[in-house]
Amino acid sequence: MILWLNGALVEHGAGRIAPDDRGFTLGDGLFETLRAKGGALWHLHAHLARLAAGARVLGLPLPQVDFKAAALAVLEANGLSDGVVRITLSRGSGPRGVLPPAEPQPTVLITAAPAPPPAPPARLIIARVTRRNELSPLHAVKSLNYLDNILARQEAAARGADDALLLNTRERVAESTIANLFVVIGNMLLTPSVCEGALPGIMRAEVLREHGSEATLREEDLAQAQEIFLTSSLGIRSVSHLEGRDLPATYPVAESLRASLGL
Amino acid sequence: MILWLNGALVEHGAGRIAPDDRGFTLGDGLFETLRAKGGALWHLHAHLARLAAGARVLGLPLPQVDFKAAALAVLEANGLSDGVVRITLSRGSGPRGVLPPAEPQPTVLITAAPAPPPAPPARLIIARVTRRNELSPLHAVKSLNYLDNILARQEAAARGADDALLLNTRERVAESTIANLFVVIGNMLLTPSVCEGALPGIMRAEVLREHGSEATLREEDLAQAQEIFLTSSLGIRSVSHLEGRDLPATYPVAESLRASLGL
Repeated sequence: MILWLNGALVEHGAGRIAPDDRGFTLGDGLFETLRAKGGALWHLHAHLARLAAGARVLGLPLPQVDFKAAALAVLEANGLSDGVVRITLSRGSGPRGVLPPAEPQPTVLITAAPAPPPAPPARLIIARVTRRNELSPLHAVKSLNYLDNILARQEAAARGADDALLLNTRERVAESTIANLFVVIGNMLLTPSVCEGALPGIMRAEVLREHGSEATLREEDLAQAQEIFLTSSLGIRSVSHLEGRDLPATYPVAESLRASLGL
Repeated sequence: MILWLNGALVEHGAGRIAPDDRGFTLGDGLFETLRAKGGALWHLHAHLARLAAGARVLGLPLPQVDFKAAALAVLEANGLSDGVVRITLSRGSGPRGVLPPAEPQPTVLITAAPAPPPAPPARLIIARVTRRNELSPLHAVKSLNYLDNILARQEAAARGADDALLLNTRERVAESTIANLFVVIGNMLLTPSVCEGALPGIMRAEVLREHGSEATLREEDLAQAQEIFLTSSLGIRSVSHLEGRDLPATYPVAESLRASLGL
């Protein structure tokens, strides 16, 4: 695998993150995951806008990088026209201590992987192990602090599920460990508000532009859903089970959205 | 600087963290900071017990490492008998995705730095930018997810202070960005409970063994304090100002504890 690291294409084995990189020592950074298809990067502008917004929250200057050219170069170097690109931005090396250096030298890493095969409808649980903190500004930032999501994803695996929904500190539904949530109730298409702890997902915004509204959703509201699906930059994934309960095995809203969004 | 990385002493410039190390990509790991003095590691056993407890929360097998020998070797290689040792444990390399690999190959990094000079009494603020999530099991784990603390520490710097106290999701005081909090009210010495979001600090436990009790503390309780101090593995630091208000410039309880704990 070839990656792009701070301006150069290098073999993975030659790519070095410094041991004092604050991305490694403190999770001090951000990332974006983009879908590439037919050599084009989906919604690149929206991803870069979210990266810039996250950098402002962290007080991290966004390096001058031609992200589009770099991402396309990584895809090409790996012989991929379809795939998944990840951009990681950390605050770079720093001395001991929590306070960032006054003039950070950020690390930029861009990697590419083959697109995953289409996933079957997901079996979901509601995570009991942890809660998403909607009172931190980080809930709206795609940061490197992923341990709550990792704990919830491990709980899903232990309980025979594919993914887990996270509740926020007020017991309202926020999102899954890797995706936003949409539910169809009556003739409404609803998704948790960003202020409830949902990451402002790029595909979520695309779906909301077509159809749907933000709402406050509790666990008991999900029991009324005729259809549930997850959105991420990789696409729309229908949900077949929630907490062991079968959902209807037809997914008309997700299918219609996939068609109208060209997924 | 020489560091210990996965079994070998190497120069910092030769130390390589892989670009797909989950410590870097997802903050998937833990750390400990220990004080070394006169060539001895303070409370090594308690630090390793906390590291092991954190590894259990993360479902991460603790590698078989002689941490004591490795830490002493790093100190010696850097010509330090007094200093600060940091042990970082990450889940190591992994493929794309949140779910950890079934058989992780953890990364262990041990570094040493000179002991910081004695710090003057601290000027504290109460962070408004974020909240500590006491509903996540990570609040009791010294994990690599430090961004909330970084945001609060940046707010402290912006407001002319040395450190910030974090409130939990219920607006109760949890700890500072790098230390536990103790307050003297009447003849009581009080510190926030672990279930309020306080990290179970090693020095905190030492102080609690001597004197003091866990309590629920709100911001308004702090206004009654005759004395406030912070504890971390580096020692006990008195507090001179809280939110711009002067505290009494004598620190009898902290001084007595420093004497009885041999700090």
